[in-house]
Amino acid sequence: MVSMAIPSINRPISAVIDTKAFRHNLNRIRELAPESKVWSVIKAKGYGHTLEAALQGLGATDGFALLDIADAQWLRDHDWNGRILLLEGLFHQAELERAVALGCDMVVHSEKQVAWLESYANHAGHSINIFLKLNSGMNRLGFRPEQYRNAFHVLHSAGYRLHHMTHFANADQVDRYPSVGEQVDCFEQAIQGLEAATSLGNSAAILWHRNYLGDWIRPGIMLYGVSPTGVFADIVRSDLQAVMTLNSEIIDIQHLKKGEHVGYGGRFEAPEDMKIGVIACGYADGYPRQASDGTPVWVQSAGGDGGVICPVAGQVSMDMITIDLRGAPQAMIGSKVELWGNEVPVDDVAHMSGTIGYELICALTARVPVAVT
Amino acid sequence: MVSMAIPSINRPISAVIDTKAFRHNLNRIRELAPESKVWSVIKAKGYGHTLEAALQGLGATDGFALLDIADAQWLRDHDWNGRILLLEGLFHQAELERAVALGCDMVVHSEKQVAWLESYANHAGHSINIFLKLNSGMNRLGFRPEQYRNAFHVLHSAGYRLHHMTHFANADQVDRYPSVGEQVDCFEQAIQGLEAATSLGNSAAILWHRNYLGDWIRPGIMLYGVSPTGVFADIVRSDLQAVMTLNSEIIDIQHLKKGEHVGYGGRFEAPEDMKIGVIACGYADGYPRQASDGTPVWVQSAGGDGGVICPVAGQVSMDMITIDLRGAPQAMIGSKVELWGNEVPVDDVAHMSGTIGYELICALTARVPVAVT
Repeated sequence: MVSMAIPSINRPISAVIDTKAFRHNLNRIRELAPESKVWSVIKAKGYGHTLEAALQGLGATDGFALLDIADAQWLRDHDWNGRILLLEGLFHQAELERAVALGCDMVVHSEKQVAWLESYANHAGHSINIFLKLNSGMNRLGFRPEQYRNAFHVLHSAGYRLHHMTHFANADQVDRYPSVGEQVDCFEQAIQGLEAATSLGNSAAILWHRNYLGDWIRPGIMLYGVSPTGVFADIVRSDLQAVMTLNSEIIDIQHLKKGEHVGYGGRFEAPEDMKIGVIACGYADGYPRQASDGTPVWVQSAGGDGGVICPVAGQVSMDMITIDLRGAPQAMIGSKVELWGNEVPVDDVAHMSGTIGYELICALTARVPVAVT
Repeated sequence: MVSMAIPSINRPISAVIDTKAFRHNLNRIRELAPESKVWSVIKAKGYGHTLEAALQGLGATDGFALLDIADAQWLRDHDWNGRILLLEGLFHQAELERAVALGCDMVVHSEKQVAWLESYANHAGHSINIFLKLNSGMNRLGFRPEQYRNAFHVLHSAGYRLHHMTHFANADQVDRYPSVGEQVDCFEQAIQGLEAATSLGNSAAILWHRNYLGDWIRPGIMLYGVSPTGVFADIVRSDLQAVMTLNSEIIDIQHLKKGEHVGYGGRFEAPEDMKIGVIACGYADGYPRQASDGTPVWVQSAGGDGGVICPVAGQVSMDMITIDLRGAPQAMIGSKVELWGNEVPVDDVAHMSGTIGYELICALTARVPVAVT
C-alpha cells in the first residue's frame, strides 16, 4: 500500500520506506530476545522513516519509545492504544498532565523530574509507569548510584509503578570505558533489593550481549536495518533488512577531457577522457557533504535489469552529486540511481563520510518526498 | 511578528529566523552590487530558513531562485508576483506547462531540456525567459563552449528570451582550478556576439570578485549571514547578520569525578571533578555529529544577562549534546543555550565539525520547530 504518492513532475529524488522490512526486523529481534518485551524506539520521526511508516510496520511491538510528546499525541490520534515511553521523560512540568492524559510511561532521570512527579502524586494519585534511569557510566542522563536508591524510594512511596533502566555507552565496542560488564555490575549493585522490572538492551546489546537485556529491550537502529557500529560488515550475517531506500536520477552528463576538474574546489580530476553523471541529490537533501571520492552510488542499467556501482567523483554540493560513469557507459539522463538502500548499505555511505548510518537516515530533510510501501 | 508559536511544553529546542537580518543582508548586497538585479537564492527551503521567512524578509528582491516547482507554486499561492527562476530548469518534460502557468524563468543546462522547449515552442509560442547555462569549467551542469552557441541559436529561433549564465567553482578560493578569471575568459569567448543579459555572481563573487557579476547576481549563502568560504573570519568585516538562531536548554547536569568518561565511546575524560551539562539537541536535529570537543556552545547566565561559551565535551548523540560547565558554574537545568546564531557563528560550529555552515543550516530537521520573527 502506497500511502503517499510521489509527485511525478518534481525533482526526481525520493525516499521509499518498506514496512515489510520493518516487520522482518522486529521478528528478528523477537528471535534474538524471546524473553523480553520490546520498546521500538522511534524518536527522531522514526529515525527519519516517518511515524506513519513506523506505526504501519511495527504495530506488533509491545510499545513505542520516543521523545516528543507531540509524537505520542500523533500515535494516539492514529489509534495506537499500546504503551508509549517518553525516553527523556518530561522537559517541563507543564507537560505532565498531557503525558498522563495520553497514558505515557515516563523515564525519570533528574531530581527536578522527581520533584514534579512527587508534587503531582500528592494531589492526583495516578498510577503511572516510571522507568527510573541509572547513570551507570555513560554520564549523560540519569542518577548516580548513590542518588538512585533515594529517587526510587521517593517515587515508590508516592505510588508510582517503578522500573529500573540504564543505557550502555559501548555495547558496540570492546575496547572502551565503561564496558558493558562494568555498567551491568554497577546496575545490579544499585538496584539490589529494589524489586522492579528492568530495561537495558539497546540494539548493540541485543546483537552482541544477550545476557544483559532485561525485561524490556529498546532496539533502535537495528529496527531500521542499519549497523549499531557504523560498519555494515558487523550486521551482514544478522539477517536485518534495510527499511529506507533513497532514490534519484541522473539529470545531466558531462563529457570531461583528461585533466579537467569537477565541482567546487575541483577535487576530482579526470584521469582520462570520461563521462560524469550529475545526480539530483545533495547535502541539502541529507546526503553527507563529507562523502569522499569513491563513495558508492548504484546506477540502474538501461534495460532496468540490475545495475552497477559508480563512485562519487568530486565534492558533493547542495543539490547535486557527481559520479564517475566509466563503469556505466550506457547511463543517460533519466537513469535511476540508488543513493542508499538494498544495493548500497547506508553504513557504507556513512563510512566513506566519516560518520555512522544513524546520522544519515535521521537527517533526511523535509524537501525529500517520502513514500511508505 | 511571530508567525509560528513555539509549543511551550515540548522538547525545548527551536530555531528562530530573524527577517530583519534578511532585510539587512539584502541591503548589503544592493550596496555591494548596485548595478545588478538580484536573484535571491532560496532553494532547500530557503537554506533551511523556511520559504515563509524568506518571503517575509526578502520581499524587496528582484526575484527568487529555487529548484522545486512546488516551491514556485508556494510563492505564487502566497502572492509573490515577481520573477521566479528554476535554477536547474525542468527535471521532466511534464513540468513544462506548470512552469509556464506559474510564469517561471528557467535555466537550461542540457540538450534534453532544449528539445523539450523546442517542441513546446512549436505549438505554443510562449515568450519565456531562459537562462542558458554555460559550463565554463565547473563541469557539473551546463553546455560546453562548443555546444553552447548552437543551443543558444536553437532556443533563440524558437522565440525564447535568452540570458547567459555560468557558475563559479572557486570564487571563494584563490589556489584552485578553474579560477574565476579562467571561467570569465571562457564565458566571454562563448557568448561573443550573442546579445543577451548575463548572470554570474554568487555570494563569493559578490564579496570578492565584483568585476564579474553580470546583470543578474545570485546571492545564496550571504543572504543568510553565513560565510561562503566556511570561515567566519572571512566575512566578519562584511557587515552581514546571522538570520538563523538555534536555541535549546540544559536538561540535565552530571557531576563527574576526575577520570570519568562521557557519552558513547567515552571520548571526553574529565581532567578533574567537574560538571557536565546535557543539552536537548543532537544530530537528529541537524547538529553535526562530527563536532569535536571544544566546539562552542553559548550558555545564558543565570540572571539572563549575557552568557559564556562552554565547549562541547564528548560525542554528540542523536538527541543530546554534552558540554563542559567549568566556565559556567551557575548553569542549571533550564538554562538557555544557543547552538548557533549571533553568539556562536554557525561557521565556527561547522569548522569544528569538518564541514561548512551551508550544510548545517540546510540540514535542520523537521522535528525542530521554527519561529519567524
